[in-house]
Amino acid sequence: MTSNRPERAAARTTVIMQATLALAQEIGYAKLSIEAVAARAGVGKHTIYRRWPSKGLLFLDSLLSLDEPVLDYPDTGDVLADLRQQIYAAVDLLATPPYGPLYRALIGEAQHDPAVAADLNERFIRPQTDKTIARLKAAQDAGQVAPGFDLDLVMAVVSGPLYYRFLITQEPMTHDYVDRVLDALFAGMSPRH
Amino acid sequence: MTSNRPERAAARTTVIMQATLALAQEIGYAKLSIEAVAARAGVGKHTIYRRWPSKGLLFLDSLLSLDEPVLDYPDTGDVLADLRQQIYAAVDLLATPPYGPLYRALIGEAQHDPAVAADLNERFIRPQTDKTIARLKAAQDAGQVAPGFDLDLVMAVVSGPLYYRFLITQEPMTHDYVDRVLDALFAGMSPRH
Repeated sequence: MTSNRPERAAARTTVIMQATLALAQEIGYAKLSIEAVAARAGVGKHTIYRRWPSKGLLFLDSLLSLDEPVLDYPDTGDVLADLRQQIYAAVDLLATPPYGPLYRALIGEAQHDPAVAADLNERFIRPQTDKTIARLKAAQDAGQVAPGFDLDLVMAVVSGPLYYRFLITQEPMTHDYVDRVLDALFAGMSPRH
Repeated sequence: MTSNRPERAAARTTVIMQATLALAQEIGYAKLSIEAVAARAGVGKHTIYRRWPSKGLLFLDSLLSLDEPVLDYPDTGDVLADLRQQIYAAVDLLATPPYGPLYRALIGEAQHDPAVAADLNERFIRPQTDKTIARLKAAQDAGQVAPGFDLDLVMAVVSGPLYYRFLITQEPMTHDYVDRVLDALFAGMSPRH
Protein backbone atom coordinates (compact mmCIF):
# COMPACT_ATOMS: atom_id res chain seq x y z
CA MET A 1 0.00 0.00 0.00
CA THR A 2 2.91 2.36 -0.51
CA SER A 3 2.75 5.15 -3.08
CA ASN A 4 4.95 3.26 -5.54
CA ARG A 5 2.67 0.26 -5.79
CA PRO A 6 1.86 0.78 -9.52
CA GLU A 7 5.57 0.91 -10.35
CA ARG A 8 6.17 -2.28 -8.43
CA ALA A 9 3.33 -4.00 -10.28
CA ALA A 10 4.79 -2.85 -13.61
CA ALA A 11 8.23 -4.09 -12.60
CA ARG A 12 6.77 -7.47 -11.64
CA THR A 13 4.99 -7.67 -14.99
CA THR A 14 8.30 -7.05 -16.74
CA VAL A 15 10.02 -9.73 -14.68
CA ILE A 16 7.30 -12.25 -15.53
CA MET A 17 7.43 -11.49 -19.25
CA GLN A 18 11.22 -11.69 -19.32
CA ALA A 19 11.10 -15.02 -17.48
CA THR A 20 8.57 -16.27 -20.03
CA LEU A 21 10.77 -15.40 -23.01
CA ALA A 22 13.95 -16.70 -21.36
CA LEU A 23 12.33 -20.04 -20.51
CA ALA A 24 10.74 -20.38 -23.95
CA GLN A 25 14.18 -19.98 -25.50
CA GLU A 26 15.77 -22.45 -23.10
CA ILE A 27 13.26 -25.28 -23.08
CA GLY A 28 11.03 -24.52 -26.07
CA TYR A 29 7.47 -23.28 -26.06
CA ALA A 30 5.94 -26.78 -25.90
CA LYS A 31 7.50 -27.45 -22.48
CA LEU A 32 6.83 -23.99 -21.09
CA SER A 33 4.39 -23.88 -18.17
CA ILE A 34 2.97 -21.13 -16.02
CA GLU A 35 4.35 -22.96 -12.97
CA ALA A 36 7.86 -22.83 -14.41
CA VAL A 37 7.52 -19.13 -15.27
CA ALA A 38 6.28 -18.40 -11.74
CA ALA A 39 9.27 -20.22 -10.23
CA ARG A 40 11.74 -18.41 -12.48
CA ALA A 41 10.14 -15.02 -11.85
CA GLY A 42 9.89 -15.63 -8.12
CA VAL A 43 6.13 -15.02 -7.94
CA GLY A 44 3.17 -17.20 -7.09
CA LYS A 45 1.39 -18.79 -10.04
CA HIS A 46 -1.87 -17.10 -9.05
CA THR A 47 -0.16 -13.77 -9.61
CA ILE A 48 0.30 -14.84 -13.21
CA TYR A 49 -3.14 -16.39 -13.66
CA ARG A 50 -4.78 -13.22 -12.33
CA ARG A 51 -3.48 -11.32 -15.33
CA TRP A 52 -3.04 -14.01 -18.01
CA PRO A 53 -5.66 -16.76 -18.22
CA SER A 54 -3.47 -19.05 -20.34
CA LYS A 55 0.12 -19.77 -21.23
CA GLY A 56 -0.62 -18.71 -24.81
CA LEU A 57 -1.82 -15.23 -23.84
CA LEU A 58 1.12 -14.75 -21.45
CA PHE A 59 3.49 -15.70 -24.25
CA LEU A 60 1.79 -13.41 -26.77
CA ASP A 61 1.99 -10.46 -24.37
CA SER A 62 5.64 -11.20 -23.62
CA LEU A 63 6.59 -11.43 -27.27
CA LEU A 64 4.76 -8.23 -28.23
CA SER A 65 6.47 -6.44 -25.33
CA LEU A 66 9.89 -6.92 -26.94
CA ASP A 67 11.33 -3.66 -28.11
CA GLU A 68 11.38 -4.65 -31.75
CA PRO A 69 12.29 -2.35 -34.60
CA VAL A 70 9.06 -0.90 -35.94
CA LEU A 71 8.11 -2.56 -39.21
CA ASP A 72 7.17 0.65 -40.96
CA TYR A 73 7.31 1.21 -44.69
CA PRO A 74 9.67 3.79 -46.09
CA ASP A 75 8.20 5.94 -48.85
CA THR A 76 10.92 6.82 -51.32
CA GLY A 77 8.43 6.96 -54.20
CA ASP A 78 9.52 3.53 -55.47
CA VAL A 79 7.02 1.02 -54.11
CA LEU A 80 8.93 -2.10 -55.10
CA ALA A 81 12.11 -0.83 -53.41
CA ASP A 82 10.14 0.21 -50.33
CA LEU A 83 8.34 -3.12 -50.01
CA ARG A 84 11.66 -4.89 -50.45
CA GLN A 85 13.26 -2.85 -47.64
CA GLN A 86 10.40 -3.45 -45.25
CA ILE A 87 10.33 -7.18 -45.95
CA TYR A 88 14.12 -7.43 -45.63
CA ALA A 89 13.76 -5.84 -42.18
CA ALA A 90 11.06 -8.35 -41.18
CA VAL A 91 13.08 -11.29 -42.49
CA ASP A 92 16.23 -10.06 -40.73
CA LEU A 93 14.27 -9.71 -37.50
CA LEU A 94 13.06 -13.31 -37.77
CA ALA A 95 16.67 -14.41 -38.35
CA THR A 96 17.78 -12.63 -35.15
CA PRO A 97 17.49 -14.69 -31.96
CA PRO A 98 15.11 -15.02 -30.27
CA TYR A 99 12.48 -13.72 -32.68
CA GLY A 100 12.18 -16.49 -35.28
CA PRO A 101 11.61 -19.51 -33.03
CA LEU A 102 9.43 -17.51 -30.65
CA TYR A 103 7.23 -16.10 -33.41
CA ARG A 104 6.92 -19.59 -34.94
CA ALA A 105 5.84 -20.93 -31.53
CA LEU A 106 3.30 -18.13 -31.16
CA ILE A 107 1.69 -18.92 -34.51
CA GLY A 108 1.72 -22.59 -33.57
CA GLU A 109 -0.19 -21.79 -30.39
CA ALA A 110 -2.65 -19.67 -32.38
CA GLN A 111 -3.66 -22.90 -34.18
CA HIS A 112 -4.73 -24.47 -30.87
CA ASP A 113 -6.02 -21.44 -28.94
CA PRO A 114 -8.54 -19.10 -30.63
CA ALA A 115 -7.94 -16.39 -27.99
CA VAL A 116 -4.26 -16.25 -29.00
CA ALA A 117 -5.21 -16.10 -32.69
CA ALA A 118 -7.67 -13.25 -32.03
CA ASP A 119 -5.15 -11.26 -29.97
CA LEU A 120 -2.37 -11.80 -32.50
CA ASN A 121 -4.62 -10.44 -35.23
CA GLU A 122 -5.86 -7.49 -33.28
CA ARG A 123 -2.52 -6.40 -31.83
CA PHE A 124 -0.04 -7.29 -34.57
CA ILE A 125 -1.52 -8.43 -37.89
CA ARG A 126 -4.23 -5.76 -38.21
CA PRO A 127 -1.94 -2.74 -37.60
CA GLN A 128 0.63 -4.20 -39.99
CA THR A 129 -2.11 -4.75 -42.58
CA ASP A 130 -3.28 -1.16 -42.27
CA LYS A 131 0.25 0.15 -42.84
CA THR A 132 0.74 -2.12 -45.83
CA ILE A 133 -2.53 -1.12 -47.45
CA ALA A 134 -1.76 2.59 -46.91
CA ARG A 135 1.65 2.28 -48.62
CA LEU A 136 0.17 0.31 -51.53
CA LYS A 137 -2.72 2.74 -51.90
CA ALA A 138 -0.23 5.60 -52.30
CA ALA A 139 1.61 3.52 -54.91
CA GLN A 140 -1.64 2.79 -56.74
CA ASP A 141 -2.50 6.49 -56.75
CA ALA A 142 0.98 7.18 -58.18
CA GLY A 143 0.46 4.64 -60.97
CA GLN A 144 3.04 2.14 -59.65
CA VAL A 145 0.51 -0.55 -58.82
CA ALA A 146 -2.14 -1.77 -61.26
CA PRO A 147 -5.40 0.17 -60.79
CA GLY A 148 -7.33 -3.10 -60.63
CA PHE A 149 -5.15 -4.67 -57.93
CA ASP A 150 -7.30 -5.64 -54.93
CA LEU A 151 -5.62 -3.84 -52.02
CA ASP A 152 -7.53 -5.88 -49.43
CA LEU A 153 -5.54 -8.89 -50.63
CA VAL A 154 -2.13 -7.31 -50.31
CA MET A 155 -1.13 -8.92 -47.00
CA ALA A 156 -2.26 -12.37 -48.13
CA VAL A 157 -0.55 -12.07 -51.51
CA VAL A 158 2.69 -10.48 -50.32
CA SER A 159 3.10 -11.99 -46.83
CA GLY A 160 1.46 -15.33 -47.67
CA PRO A 161 4.48 -16.66 -49.62
CA LEU A 162 6.76 -15.63 -46.73
CA TYR A 163 4.61 -17.30 -44.09
CA TYR A 164 4.39 -20.36 -46.33
CA ARG A 165 8.17 -20.73 -46.23
CA PHE A 166 8.37 -19.84 -42.53
CA LEU A 167 5.61 -22.17 -41.31
CA ILE A 168 5.22 -24.93 -43.90
CA THR A 169 8.49 -25.75 -45.66
CA GLN A 170 10.50 -24.09 -42.87
CA GLU A 171 13.38 -23.36 -45.23
CA PRO A 172 15.65 -20.39 -44.50
CA MET A 173 14.19 -17.02 -45.40
CA THR A 174 16.73 -15.12 -47.49
CA HIS A 175 16.80 -11.75 -49.22
CA ASP A 176 17.09 -13.67 -52.49
CA TYR A 177 13.82 -15.44 -51.76
CA VAL A 178 12.13 -12.10 -51.00
CA ASP A 179 13.40 -10.69 -54.31
CA ARG A 180 12.11 -13.66 -56.29
CA VAL A 181 8.69 -13.50 -54.65
CA LEU A 182 8.31 -9.76 -55.24
CA ASP A 183 9.43 -10.10 -58.85
CA ALA A 184 6.90 -12.89 -59.43
CA LEU A 185 4.06 -10.96 -57.77
CA PHE A 186 4.71 -7.74 -59.66
CA ALA A 187 5.14 -9.46 -63.03
CA GLY A 188 2.10 -11.73 -62.56
CA MET A 189 1.63 -15.26 -63.82
CA SER A 190 -0.13 -14.40 -67.09
CA PRO A 191 1.99 -13.83 -70.18
CA ARG A 192 2.17 -10.13 -71.03
CA HIS A 193 1.50 -9.53 -74.69
CA MET B 1 1.94 -66.37 -33.43
CA THR B 2 -1.00 -67.34 -35.59
CA SER B 3 -0.91 -66.90 -39.35
CA ASN B 4 -3.11 -63.78 -39.24
CA ARG B 5 -0.79 -61.85 -36.96
CA PRO B 6 0.05 -59.17 -39.58
CA GLU B 7 -3.64 -58.56 -40.18
CA ARG B 8 -4.26 -58.20 -36.48
CA ALA B 9 -1.41 -55.71 -36.19
CA ALA B 10 -2.84 -53.71 -39.10
CA ALA B 11 -6.29 -53.77 -37.52
CA ARG B 12 -4.82 -52.54 -34.23
CA THR B 13 -3.02 -49.72 -36.07
CA THR B 14 -6.32 -48.68 -37.64
CA VAL B 15 -8.07 -48.73 -34.27
CA ILE B 16 -5.34 -46.54 -32.73
CA MET B 17 -5.44 -44.02 -35.58
CA GLN B 18 -9.24 -43.82 -35.48
CA ALA B 19 -9.14 -43.31 -31.71
CA THR B 20 -6.58 -40.52 -32.22
CA LEU B 21 -8.76 -38.66 -34.70
CA ALA B 22 -11.95 -39.19 -32.71
CA LEU B 23 -10.36 -37.89 -29.52
CA ALA B 24 -8.75 -34.93 -31.28
CA GLN B 25 -12.17 -33.91 -32.56
CA GLU B 26 -13.80 -34.35 -29.16
CA ILE B 27 -11.28 -32.67 -26.86
CA GLY B 28 -9.03 -30.73 -29.26
CA TYR B 29 -5.46 -31.49 -30.21
CA ALA B 30 -3.96 -29.55 -27.30
CA LYS B 31 -5.53 -31.88 -24.71
CA LEU B 32 -4.87 -35.07 -26.66
CA SER B 33 -2.45 -37.49 -24.97
CA ILE B 34 -1.03 -40.86 -25.89
CA GLU B 35 -2.44 -42.19 -22.60
CA ALA B 36 -5.95 -41.11 -23.60
CA VAL B 37 -5.58 -42.63 -27.06
CA ALA B 38 -4.37 -45.90 -25.53
CA ALA B 39 -7.36 -46.01 -23.19
CA ARG B 40 -9.82 -45.27 -26.00
CA ALA B 41 -8.21 -47.82 -28.35
CA GLY B 42 -7.99 -50.45 -25.60
CA VAL B 43 -4.24 -50.99 -25.99
CA GLY B 44 -1.29 -50.37 -23.70
CA LYS B 45 0.50 -47.07 -24.16
CA HIS B 46 3.77 -48.87 -24.91
CA THR B 47 2.07 -50.41 -27.95
CA ILE B 48 1.64 -46.87 -29.23
CA TYR B 49 5.08 -45.61 -28.23
CA ARG B 50 6.72 -48.58 -29.98
CA ARG B 51 5.42 -47.30 -33.29
CA TRP B 52 5.02 -43.56 -32.73
CA PRO B 53 7.63 -41.73 -30.65
CA SER B 54 5.44 -38.66 -30.09
CA LYS B 55 1.87 -37.50 -30.08
CA GLY B 56 2.63 -35.26 -33.06
CA LEU B 57 3.83 -38.13 -35.26
CA LEU B 58 0.89 -40.32 -34.25
CA PHE B 59 -1.47 -37.50 -35.16
CA LEU B 60 0.26 -36.86 -38.51
CA ASP B 61 0.04 -40.54 -39.42
CA SER B 62 -3.61 -40.69 -38.40
CA LEU B 63 -4.52 -37.62 -40.41
CA LEU B 64 -2.69 -38.77 -43.54
CA SER B 65 -4.41 -42.18 -43.24
CA LEU B 66 -7.80 -40.58 -43.85
CA ASP B 67 -9.22 -41.59 -47.16
CA GLU B 68 -9.23 -38.09 -48.55
CA PRO B 69 -10.12 -37.17 -52.11
CA VAL B 70 -6.90 -36.97 -54.09
CA LEU B 71 -5.95 -33.37 -54.70
CA ASP B 72 -4.96 -33.88 -58.33
CA TYR B 73 -5.08 -31.21 -61.01
CA PRO B 74 -7.41 -31.64 -63.92
CA ASP B 75 -5.90 -30.71 -67.30
CA THR B 76 -8.61 -29.26 -69.48
CA GLY B 77 -6.11 -27.06 -71.30
CA ASP B 78 -7.20 -23.97 -69.33
CA VAL B 79 -4.71 -23.57 -66.50
CA LEU B 80 -6.63 -20.89 -64.58
CA ALA B 81 -9.81 -23.00 -64.62
CA ASP B 82 -7.85 -26.09 -63.59
CA LEU B 83 -6.08 -24.36 -60.72
CA ARG B 84 -9.41 -22.95 -59.59
CA GLN B 85 -11.02 -26.40 -59.56
CA GLN B 86 -8.17 -27.97 -57.61
CA ILE B 87 -8.11 -25.18 -55.04
CA TYR B 88 -11.91 -25.27 -54.69
CA ALA B 89 -11.56 -29.00 -53.90
CA ALA B 90 -8.88 -28.30 -51.27
CA VAL B 91 -10.91 -25.48 -49.71
CA ASP B 92 -14.07 -27.61 -49.67
CA LEU B 93 -12.13 -30.43 -48.00
CA LEU B 94 -10.94 -28.05 -45.26
CA ALA B 95 -14.54 -26.92 -44.78
CA THR B 96 -15.67 -30.54 -44.28
CA PRO B 97 -15.40 -31.85 -40.73
CA PRO B 98 -13.05 -33.04 -39.42
CA TYR B 99 -10.39 -31.89 -41.88
CA GLY B 100 -10.08 -28.15 -41.23
CA PRO B 101 -9.54 -28.14 -37.45
CA LEU B 102 -7.37 -31.26 -37.61
CA TYR B 103 -5.14 -29.89 -40.37
CA ARG B 104 -4.83 -26.59 -38.50
CA ALA B 105 -3.78 -28.52 -35.37
CA LEU B 106 -1.23 -30.49 -37.38
CA ILE B 107 0.40 -27.36 -38.74
CA GLY B 108 0.35 -25.90 -35.24
CA GLU B 109 2.23 -28.94 -33.96
CA ALA B 110 4.73 -28.62 -36.82
CA GLN B 111 5.73 -25.25 -35.31
CA HIS B 112 6.78 -26.96 -32.07
CA ASP B 113 8.06 -30.33 -33.32
CA PRO B 114 10.60 -30.38 -36.19
CA ALA B 115 9.97 -34.11 -36.79
CA VAL B 116 6.31 -33.37 -37.53
CA ALA B 117 7.30 -30.53 -39.86
CA ALA B 118 9.75 -32.77 -41.74
CA ASP B 119 7.24 -35.59 -42.11
CA LEU B 120 4.48 -33.23 -43.20
CA ASN B 121 6.73 -31.86 -45.91
CA GLU B 122 7.97 -35.21 -47.11
CA ARG B 123 4.62 -36.99 -47.12
CA PHE B 124 2.16 -34.25 -48.07
CA ILE B 125 3.66 -30.92 -49.14
CA ARG B 126 6.40 -32.27 -51.45
CA PRO B 127 4.11 -34.55 -53.52
CA GLN B 128 1.56 -31.75 -53.80
CA THR B 129 4.30 -29.37 -54.89
CA ASP B 130 5.50 -31.76 -57.59
CA LYS B 131 1.97 -32.09 -59.00
CA THR B 132 1.49 -28.33 -58.96
CA ILE B 133 4.78 -27.63 -60.73
CA ALA B 134 4.02 -30.28 -63.36
CA ARG B 135 0.62 -28.72 -64.16
CA LEU B 136 2.11 -25.21 -64.33
CA LYS B 137 5.02 -26.39 -66.48
CA ALA B 138 2.54 -27.77 -69.01
CA ALA B 139 0.72 -24.44 -68.94
CA GLN B 140 3.96 -22.54 -69.42
CA ASP B 141 4.84 -24.76 -72.40
CA ALA B 142 1.37 -24.03 -73.82
CA GLY B 143 1.90 -20.27 -73.46
CA GLN B 144 -0.70 -19.81 -70.68
CA VAL B 145 1.83 -18.86 -68.01
CA ALA B 146 4.50 -16.20 -68.47
CA PRO B 147 7.74 -17.75 -69.71
CA GLY B 148 9.68 -15.93 -66.99
CA PHE B 149 7.48 -17.14 -64.14
CA ASP B 150 9.59 -18.96 -61.53
CA LEU B 151 7.89 -22.37 -61.24
CA ASP B 152 9.77 -23.22 -58.04
CA LEU B 153 7.79 -20.45 -56.37
CA VAL B 154 4.38 -21.63 -57.46
CA MET B 155 3.36 -23.33 -54.19
CA ALA B 156 4.48 -20.36 -52.11
CA VAL B 157 2.80 -17.83 -54.39
CA VAL B 158 -0.46 -19.72 -54.98
CA SER B 159 -0.89 -21.61 -51.67
CA GLY B 160 0.73 -18.95 -49.50
CA PRO B 161 -2.27 -16.58 -49.62
CA LEU B 162 -4.57 -19.50 -48.75
CA TYR B 163 -2.44 -20.63 -45.81
CA TYR B 164 -2.21 -17.00 -44.68
CA ARG B 165 -5.99 -16.86 -44.35
CA PHE B 166 -6.22 -20.36 -42.86
CA LEU B 167 -3.48 -19.93 -40.24
CA ILE B 168 -3.08 -16.21 -39.57
CA THR B 169 -6.33 -14.30 -39.99
CA GLN B 170 -8.37 -17.51 -39.66
CA GLU B 171 -11.23 -16.04 -41.68
CA PRO B 172 -13.49 -18.41 -43.63
CA MET B 173 -12.01 -19.72 -46.87
CA THR B 174 -14.53 -19.16 -49.65
CA HIS B 175 -14.58 -19.79 -53.39
CA ASP B 176 -14.85 -16.04 -53.83
CA TYR B 177 -11.59 -15.55 -51.93
CA VAL B 178 -9.90 -18.18 -54.14
CA ASP B 179 -11.12 -16.38 -57.26
CA ARG B 180 -9.85 -13.01 -56.06
CA VAL B 181 -6.43 -14.43 -55.18
CA LEU B 182 -6.03 -16.20 -58.53
CA ASP B 183 -7.13 -13.10 -60.44
CA ALA B 184 -4.60 -10.98 -58.52
CA LEU B 185 -1.77 -13.46 -59.05
CA PHE B 186 -2.39 -13.88 -62.78
CA ALA B 187 -2.79 -10.15 -63.41
CA GLY B 188 0.23 -9.18 -61.30
CA MET B 189 0.70 -6.07 -59.21
CA SER B 190 2.48 -3.96 -61.85
CA PRO B 191 0.37 -1.83 -64.15
CA ARG B 192 0.20 -3.38 -67.65
CA HIS B 193 0.90 -0.83 -70.35
